[in-house]
Amino acid sequence: MSSQDSKSTGPAASGFSRRRLFGAVGAGAALVGVGAIAGNATATGSESPTSDVVEFRGDHQAGIVTPAQDRMHFVAFDITTDSREEFVALLRKWTDMAERLTKGEETFEDGAVGAGEYKPPSDTGEALGLAASSLTLTIGFGPGLFDRFGLADKKPASLADLQHFPADNLDPARSGGDLCIQACANDPQVAVHAIRNLARVGFGTVSVKWSQLGFGRTSSTSTTQATPRNLFGFKDGTANLKAEDPQMLDENVWVDPADDQAWMGGGSYLVARRIRMLIESWDRTTLKEQERVIGRSKGTGAPLGLTDEFDALDLDSKGPDGPLIDADAHVRLASKEELGGIQILRRGYNFTDGSDGFGHLDAGLFFIAYCRDPLTQFVPLQLALARTDLLNEYIQHVGSAVFACPPGLGESEYWGSTLFA
Amino acid sequence: MSSQDSKSTGPAASGFSRRRLFGAVGAGAALVGVGAIAGNATATGSESPTSDVVEFRGDHQAGIVTPAQDRMHFVAFDITTDSREEFVALLRKWTDMAERLTKGEETFEDGAVGAGEYKPPSDTGEALGLAASSLTLTIGFGPGLFDRFGLADKKPASLADLQHFPADNLDPARSGGDLCIQACANDPQVAVHAIRNLARVGFGTVSVKWSQLGFGRTSSTSTTQATPRNLFGFKDGTANLKAEDPQMLDENVWVDPADDQAWMGGGSYLVARRIRMLIESWDRTTLKEQERVIGRSKGTGAPLGLTDEFDALDLDSKGPDGPLIDADAHVRLASKEELGGIQILRRGYNFTDGSDGFGHLDAGLFFIAYCRDPLTQFVPLQLALARTDLLNEYIQHVGSAVFACPPGLGESEYWGSTLFA
Repeated sequence: MSSQDSKSTGPAASGFSRRRLFGAVGAGAALVGVGAIAGNATATGSESPTSDVVEFRGDHQAGIVTPAQDRMHFVAFDITTDSREEFVALLRKWTDMAERLTKGEETFEDGAVGAGEYKPPSDTGEALGLAASSLTLTIGFGPGLFDRFGLADKKPASLADLQHFPADNLDPARSGGDLCIQACANDPQVAVHAIRNLARVGFGTVSVKWSQLGFGRTSSTSTTQATPRNLFGFKDGTANLKAEDPQMLDENVWVDPADDQAWMGGGSYLVARRIRMLIESWDRTTLKEQERVIGRSKGTGAPLGLTDEFDALDLDSKGPDGPLIDADAHVRLASKEELGGIQILRRGYNFTDGSDGFGHLDAGLFFIAYCRDPLTQFVPLQLALARTDLLNEYIQHVGSAVFACPPGLGESEYWGSTLFA
Repeated sequence: MSSQDSKSTGPAASGFSRRRLFGAVGAGAALVGVGAIAGNATATGSESPTSDVVEFRGDHQAGIVTPAQDRMHFVAFDITTDSREEFVALLRKWTDMAERLTKGEETFEDGAVGAGEYKPPSDTGEALGLAASSLTLTIGFGPGLFDRFGLADKKPASLADLQHFPADNLDPARSGGDLCIQACANDPQVAVHAIRNLARVGFGTVSVKWSQLGFGRTSSTSTTQATPRNLFGFKDGTANLKAEDPQMLDENVWVDPADDQAWMGGGSYLVARRIRMLIESWDRTTLKEQERVIGRSKGTGAPLGLTDEFDALDLDSKGPDGPLIDADAHVRLASKEELGGIQILRRGYNFTDGSDGFGHLDAGLFFIAYCRDPLTQFVPLQLALARTDLLNEYIQHVGSAVFACPPGLGESEYWGSTLFA
């Protein structure tokens, strides 16, 4: 994994591109093709040709414990077809597309300029010249899918719309969905291009219900990554599960088929929550209050009273005025110590979606978590937070969705093949 | 200018940061401060310590001919104070903040953790550890400003809300504004952080009217940059004005005080148009039709019938079936040849703002242009396009605004000092 973000136009600027054009038609297209294919063997900027490609197939889907990329485009779809065959055909087609896209190739072999001039291009073209950018595409199935196609018996017991939590203020237009695709990449145009092309070929079979762009990751999923900051200015996800601890992932993230639907073995559950941050209120709060609310130092990210971000959280620590970590501090309520050992893998993103019409920025955290069972992990965690978290004065949950993400793909498998087999 | 985008967490990951913490308070904060200041003398990734700082002061504002950065956050404000003194004080304060931010420093000297624990932090903190990222901040004044503060006599004759163009479908909530700030950077979190902090200290004096994030630049403003692609998949802005041609900039971008308000000498007019792209319709159109609409080859960006992107546009070229460039092709109608020599500096961004509630992505081009006079440059250009451009079938203008951007700042000058002197 390269430590450099790929600049949208960097590769093109030097005349090299990892993104290949196939089946070039016409003199102009052929010229591009030659340059691009030649460039494929050449490093783009400081990246080696393959350093920014994340393997698409494997035991688990990519995009879960993959070191969190910097940018995200997340989409939820409604299913608009009654035909199981048509839906499965789309999943097969999507799988082929996704595998190509994650390699930095065009959506289909004939691509943006090679399908023949009397056909719509088979790729929309805006990612031509851009690197693979560590793109991952991760699919999840929502509860509504299992009301269709004779799948009722395959529905996991843990897959249902989340309960109403105290202070939830959910917008139905930003909640739910029959399936989702999470695109993460280090170049936002690469992530948007992927979602846009998948949505495009889904026309008539699925319809975009909602989508969300995230511009900055808010968690590390690998010990190789520094902890990023959320829009409250605090390091976020210090105690997150990490890719380097497979035992913890087995215990908390990956589904064991012995206690779930067999088709979900090696999969995971994705919980998405659009959390609006009331940043204007937060910004008028004293540093002391901000740190009391979170339970960590704003500068270092260390637990209050300690000095290093990764110092162990001591919930019993006392200062002259009482507990150093407030009884309702976010870090306490969200800790595995208070939750009987519950842990989840967080993989959220900061967002800013224009303004809210009242003179404020519409900004916050698009929370994404992966867990082995939302009912025994996310629900008790969120109940604890929703009841008394000091942070509740400054946030509002405005969107919610849950999806069952099937396991990774072996050769020749497709998205959902264990479910539809 | 580095050719590498700065990854949000790259610098922090290696323990180094160009963003300094001043006035550190407490042991934890001091530890961060030491590390950060030490890191200031150290390269972050492949960038040298200063390679990603764009000079804030100069003859012209930065962010106009500065090589277009990859990401943008644009905000328009309404003025909510009746006090000229209060407004000028904000402009002075903003100028100090902006100069610091573009250097990669915190908003104020005391910063996110140094203001004292019983005060709100003077910086919101989410950019701690991030590089300067070529941040530029560019201010513009809208027509409404000149209805206030005794400024009526200083209002430029060319500064007025743009006329209604055929097929305009403007949303008032995405149009106009008494002033604007354009933040461009190679890291979106740096751009959002800047706008968020400027809006924060403006509370009570100005109020956010609308804001827009852009994730991919759609124009080059320097010959050192490759031409990027818009969401129609075409190279955009091939014939754009470039920083390397100062004579053309003088003729088309920079205001000559001899024919405008004296305070605008060296400034420029900014026209912003939120252009929704009907990408689902476009994506179902044949390659031949797409290329006919634009007038260029999708692969190479060359004018139809030619082979290289930068081949001169020949509007008289003929093929066996008639003109190679359609009479209503976008490239013809927008060309200086057809417009009596009119040229503008384009500096727009691709956007995707979730979905539109009808199963489509809300995506398009946030068009930004700089020109010497919107009435004699942008208006005739847009009239020509709005009447017959083949592209009109696939786009809709949904937001519009125009701002007068004052000249660059000498030492000790502030944003608007030539206007308020």
